[in-house]
Amino acid sequence: MYKFLTGIKSTGRPHLGNVLGVIYPTIFLTKNEKVKNNLILIANLHSLTNLKYIKRNKTNAYNILAVCLACGIDSQKFIFYRQSDLPEVTELFWFFSLIFPYKRLKLVHSFKENVRTKHIINTGILTYPILMAADILITKAELVLVGKDQLQHLEIARKIAKKINNIKKIFTLPKAIGIDKLIPGTDGTKMSKTKKNIIDLFASKQEIKNQIMKINTHKKFSTKDLLKDNLYQIYIILAGKKNKEKITKTFKMGYQHAKEELYSFIINKFKIERILYKYYIKRTNKLETIFKQGAKNIKKIVNSTISEVRKAFECN
Amino acid sequence: MYKFLTGIKSTGRPHLGNVLGVIYPTIFLTKNEKVKNNLILIANLHSLTNLKYIKRNKTNAYNILAVCLACGIDSQKFIFYRQSDLPEVTELFWFFSLIFPYKRLKLVHSFKENVRTKHIINTGILTYPILMAADILITKAELVLVGKDQLQHLEIARKIAKKINNIKKIFTLPKAIGIDKLIPGTDGTKMSKTKKNIIDLFASKQEIKNQIMKINTHKKFSTKDLLKDNLYQIYIILAGKKNKEKITKTFKMGYQHAKEELYSFIINKFKIERILYKYYIKRTNKLETIFKQGAKNIKKIVNSTISEVRKAFECN
Repeated sequence: MYKFLTGIKSTGRPHLGNVLGVIYPTIFLTKNEKVKNNLILIANLHSLTNLKYIKRNKTNAYNILAVCLACGIDSQKFIFYRQSDLPEVTELFWFFSLIFPYKRLKLVHSFKENVRTKHIINTGILTYPILMAADILITKAELVLVGKDQLQHLEIARKIAKKINNIKKIFTLPKAIGIDKLIPGTDGTKMSKTKKNIIDLFASKQEIKNQIMKINTHKKFSTKDLLKDNLYQIYIILAGKKNKEKITKTFKMGYQHAKEELYSFIINKFKIERILYKYYIKRTNKLETIFKQGAKNIKKIVNSTISEVRKAFECN
Repeated sequence: MYKFLTGIKSTGRPHLGNVLGVIYPTIFLTKNEKVKNNLILIANLHSLTNLKYIKRNKTNAYNILAVCLACGIDSQKFIFYRQSDLPEVTELFWFFSLIFPYKRLKLVHSFKENVRTKHIINTGILTYPILMAADILITKAELVLVGKDQLQHLEIARKIAKKINNIKKIFTLPKAIGIDKLIPGTDGTKMSKTKKNIIDLFASKQEIKNQIMKINTHKKFSTKDLLKDNLYQIYIILAGKKNKEKITKTFKMGYQHAKEELYSFIINKFKIERILYKYYIKRTNKLETIFKQGAKNIKKIVNSTISEVRKAFECN
């Protein structure tokens, strides 16, 4: 039996890439009867390393929960909780800061990427992997679903766990399940809100249409370019390889036609999810209750871990 | 009316330098009727930036409280509390990390000193001033008593307060009361546990004697060197300038004699404090109750501040 955890940053409403890349794999993995105590963390403290997310941080947490529920994650079988409901996570973050060299943080890919693109680097961007280690280790999760770009962070969490275990054996070493499924965005690179290349399944129909219409394609249709074609790839990922022939036929009728078909396909495929999302997002009281209940449930685990750590560091 | 705060790191039993440099000024300052809500923080998370303090971290917190009480700080008029009893402080530390550039932390004197002397610098050493800012600002203290070497940290706390206030007006800017009274150690440099040059008022009489006997002096006694004399300075600080003549006479009888006189003077001057310390340190249950009550009292202030900050960052 394995305790399962995944985390989602509250940086906006989950898009097609998030649904296929995180939410569906979560549902798939937790169907396995050996996986239990499923935890979904809404990382609403991590999101703030980019300060532009402050303004919608609360709404974004609700959005993630609403999308998860709409996509079929059962709130009875999962514990949904917000990072900010557990100050003990940041306490653990401090304890971890005491045993992890700051220079190693400067070698982390995500930090280097920030150095490359940003003028001022706030401390939270540097110490992000330590907070992530605290998120993971405080739950004593055994399986952690992360994107491939997060595998290095998970390695840091394991290193920290080992270091603390040298002081006192507290942590189990979490195992990463890295998702390598790359969902291309409308420009062909990985779908991501910051790149503004998303397909937002829960936007208005017109917005979805606009997003699909702007998918990059080759200038002229050619069957031999099909496999390199971005539009084609998105379509195949959604409709499945078994529909390859049918989709190829659609493409032969031109990109414009294929885009219209993809639009109809998406609206149809996510019809129920779109209805459910609208239902949930209007009921923030209900969502808040789920978070509060989640925090209450996870608190038992969190309190037990932090007590062990406090004892190891001779606090209290 | 001003809210007063001072913090003491739990790195050992307070020595003569701490008593004269922190505890007595605290008593003196808080006698002023304009000063209210006196807070004394035992910084038992900060102490751990040097991992050698783990082993006695709990005992050291008790030691500080016992010495404070023995020296006449009234637990009815002060709130004593431990950093580790308030995870909200570390939560605030994370929020502050989001708005403070990490590169500026590398300019802090205490960090540079660590770079000079240590092989591996853990992250906590770098981020120490941000946690200290959280300690101070979470209480909304107006007057903060700090050693001169901590003035730079207080300046950082003020900078952070201003930055957060730009998002939402939450913090009052704390004013530093910097202690510039330098208590020389037995080697003539600032008295400090790490330099092993302390006089430990609460050690056994024999230990105190040994510490005094190793005070550096000139090879031969000479009246003109007296003011530069380390032993003479310690004596004058303790006995007061009004006893200058009497002390000078003692010194004319030789350093050995002066050391013996200083020893008797210390044992006599701190007689009651030494009895009270022994009384309190045997009653850790009583000390624990004071800490728990302190945490309960300060919790109201802490909860109110952190709620404002969470709201400003759109968490919860």
